Amino acid sequence: MSAKDKAIDIETLLAKAKKPVEDAMVLHPFYKGKMETVPKCAVRGYKDFGIWYTPGVAEPCREIAKHPEKVYDYTNKWNTVAVISDGTRVLGLGDIGPKAGLPVMEGKALLFKYLGGVDAIPIMLDTKDPDKIIETVLMLQPGLGGVNLEDLSQPKCFRILDTLREKAEIPIWHDDQQGTATVTLSALVNALKVVGKKKEDVKITFVGCGAANVACARLIFGWGVDPAKCVMVDIDGTLGKHRIDFERQKSTYTAQWRLCQITNEAGIQGNIPEAMKDADVVIAYSKPGPGTILPEWIKLMAKDPIVFAGANPVPEIWPWEAKEAGAAVVATGRSDFPNQVNNSLIFPALFRGTLDVRAKTITDEMCFTAAETLAGQIQQVDDEHLIPTMEDWEVYVKIAAAVGMKAQELNIAGNEMSYEALYENAFTMIKRSRDLTQTMMENDFIAEAPV
Amino acid sequence: MSAKDKAIDIETLLAKAKKPVEDAMVLHPFYKGKMETVPKCAVRGYKDFGIWYTPGVAEPCREIAKHPEKVYDYTNKWNTVAVISDGTRVLGLGDIGPKAGLPVMEGKALLFKYLGGVDAIPIMLDTKDPDKIIETVLMLQPGLGGVNLEDLSQPKCFRILDTLREKAEIPIWHDDQQGTATVTLSALVNALKVVGKKKEDVKITFVGCGAANVACARLIFGWGVDPAKCVMVDIDGTLGKHRIDFERQKSTYTAQWRLCQITNEAGIQGNIPEAMKDADVVIAYSKPGPGTILPEWIKLMAKDPIVFAGANPVPEIWPWEAKEAGAAVVATGRSDFPNQVNNSLIFPALFRGTLDVRAKTITDEMCFTAAETLAGQIQQVDDEHLIPTMEDWEVYVKIAAAVGMKAQELNIAGNEMSYEALYENAFTMIKRSRDLTQTMMENDFIAEAPV
Repeated sequence: MSAKDKAIDIETLLAKAKKPVEDAMVLHPFYKGKMETVPKCAVRGYKDFGIWYTPGVAEPCREIAKHPEKVYDYTNKWNTVAVISDGTRVLGLGDIGPKAGLPVMEGKALLFKYLGGVDAIPIMLDTKDPDKIIETVLMLQPGLGGVNLEDLSQPKCFRILDTLREKAEIPIWHDDQQGTATVTLSALVNALKVVGKKKEDVKITFVGCGAANVACARLIFGWGVDPAKCVMVDIDGTLGKHRIDFERQKSTYTAQWRLCQITNEAGIQGNIPEAMKDADVVIAYSKPGPGTILPEWIKLMAKDPIVFAGANPVPEIWPWEAKEAGAAVVATGRSDFPNQVNNSLIFPALFRGTLDVRAKTITDEMCFTAAETLAGQIQQVDDEHLIPTMEDWEVYVKIAAAVGMKAQELNIAGNEMSYEALYENAFTMIKRSRDLTQTMMENDFIAEAPV
Repeated sequence: MSAKDKAIDIETLLAKAKKPVEDAMVLHPFYKGKMETVPKCAVRGYKDFGIWYTPGVAEPCREIAKHPEKVYDYTNKWNTVAVISDGTRVLGLGDIGPKAGLPVMEGKALLFKYLGGVDAIPIMLDTKDPDKIIETVLMLQPGLGGVNLEDLSQPKCFRILDTLREKAEIPIWHDDQQGTATVTLSALVNALKVVGKKKEDVKITFVGCGAANVACARLIFGWGVDPAKCVMVDIDGTLGKHRIDFERQKSTYTAQWRLCQITNEAGIQGNIPEAMKDADVVIAYSKPGPGTILPEWIKLMAKDPIVFAGANPVPEIWPWEAKEAGAAVVATGRSDFPNQVNNSLIFPALFRGTLDVRAKTITDEMCFTAAETLAGQIQQVDDEHLIPTMEDWEVYVKIAAAVGMKAQELNIAGNEMSYEALYENAFTMIKRSRDLTQTMMENDFIAEAPV
């Protein structure tokens, strides 16, 4: 591509990226919210309120008081997930606060319902204190089937998630960590197939050490990649035992200091190019580009390099630049390039399966299962087809069923269900969400969009 | 009515009261929850997720970060009310805990939506500590348009409500206090009309000093009844300056001690019959009967006595017993007798109006307006027609509009709206809730009830 063609291409891309932003500013005030509540039980007349409220409701209450697990049978707890955020790290916008973060959490609730049939409620917390956040989430458990933490700043997000996974009686998930890590792993599974490399052998360079990449590293190492061979880089250079800044603050930066100790056995000191030398894979969740990763650094990588440039809205390097520099496979976070690495491919389905079997927690093994199921959905893997797109919604059903089976195998499930029953249930619930939305649009309960 | 007829009548009534309980035990596990979430914005295809989620959503977020009040335009905050409870005083069941209280809060959310078009989300708190409850409610504010506290034990509920009304930036309501008080006042307005007495002159005896009657007394005194003429009775007898038990614990029982000081100027010491002597009205929210109030005590009251027997499921005295003993007007909490005093006649509509004008709080004046609007809906007031039933749903629209106008008059509204606009909006939203439920039932999104 000539320099001039490239310039035009970039302009088109940037313009394209502006369209949803413009539409968002028309449609957000038009609809004034993305989700509402509706009855899911029959209301045949006012007499039915005597069943759903006093006096009838007293009896299910009494039963739950006697047998607390019956709350899963008599209420919507089983299908309710709170999307909880303090608004300290919203998208790429930083600490914009809990009110400004609400449009994102409502969007997340929409994805939960439309893609996974899960009833999600946005909860914005007016505190930044990690201990208060932990305490509040624990306090909110009785009415919830699970919690999706979202857009919490690091490093506190690591301690919040770890503490809650330990203390909570319901599954706790931090999508910016676990969701991103799981979908990234899924793309990596197939990318390694494309270039014919084995997980045990590869060197991965992680560019960026925020919530996403710390979690990616953790999950990918757990899956079988050797941390000693890998190198992580943050704004101050490569991680390793030499990083006394992390050592000094290791009680705060526990996650990063641990990575300093288990990665970079070679003791590489330097920046991104030094870290990328001879790497088989680079996984970047860092500063939006272009120019965060330079083409000449890709040339330093091993044969058939794999490049994941995850920054939004502009990846760390444009895909065609990476390809020109020799990348065999490129993935980004954008829907207008091949290989979009998108959390929405994972969390709605993973929660569907988790809730259906009443799993007590979501383990890394369940994430591996979700990642492998997503990767396995692609029949003919090639450099432009690593993972499905959101439109292939059967994969959600498969992920839900596979995750539900895995939880049972791990003995953390409260419900026993066959693969067929899980599949059937996920299919029915997800299809129902789509059909109900369609029916509401056709019957003017959702007005036609003006743009 | 003969003794034998009465016996049959009571049996029929008790059997009737069992039917909703039996149905509840079939239908609760059948529907597994009363409310769900659905999109209220168009989803024309997967591309729309780029508007509702990243990248498009970033722009409304940025706008709210700059102008926080825009959260009311770009999200569903404006129509979202949390129904918050710790499950310490659920219906007549006592402290059954937050899980066992969930069926009630889901029922409340159903009433909020069906009767008021309000999106309510049940939030069950795993704590009984009033300070933690206060702190948590304040922390949850950013995503909420209002809070409905429910089924909190007394005396903590008084301090929780008072503190939150003072500190919160959104309206906070405790339905067991304010809702009950408002609908009781409404019935009282018309009951006084029936017997031709004036509020300034009447002596009211309040039987029971829990959340309901403490709030009733407070609101009714604020409305114009003279507290000095009135007497309150709890399990230990009449309230008054002689109640050293309350004086000793006045930091805990602040509300009751205050009532000891302003009521019972005559210094009556004794129990219910002593308190009821010469009373024009008795308002009982105490122990379920029958037999809590005896017919001979009604005979001690002034001419044309008014009897409100609010205990559920069985009133403190059967209505026909009260009538036989000389009561001119009787009201209860049951739907199978005339004059059901039912919170559901107030809170959905009162919140509709409050949310529509973005009132900062709900004042007693707004409660008076709601009570008077409800009372005014009855064209021909008589002893069996004090207030409308839930089926007369136009009254919800009128209450919403009247409350919205009152909030503007009091200068606590964030939105300016005419009566016509408020009426039209409430009408449209409430009708939409009913129609949407109907459409879901007709299209099998809500399955047919098996009983």
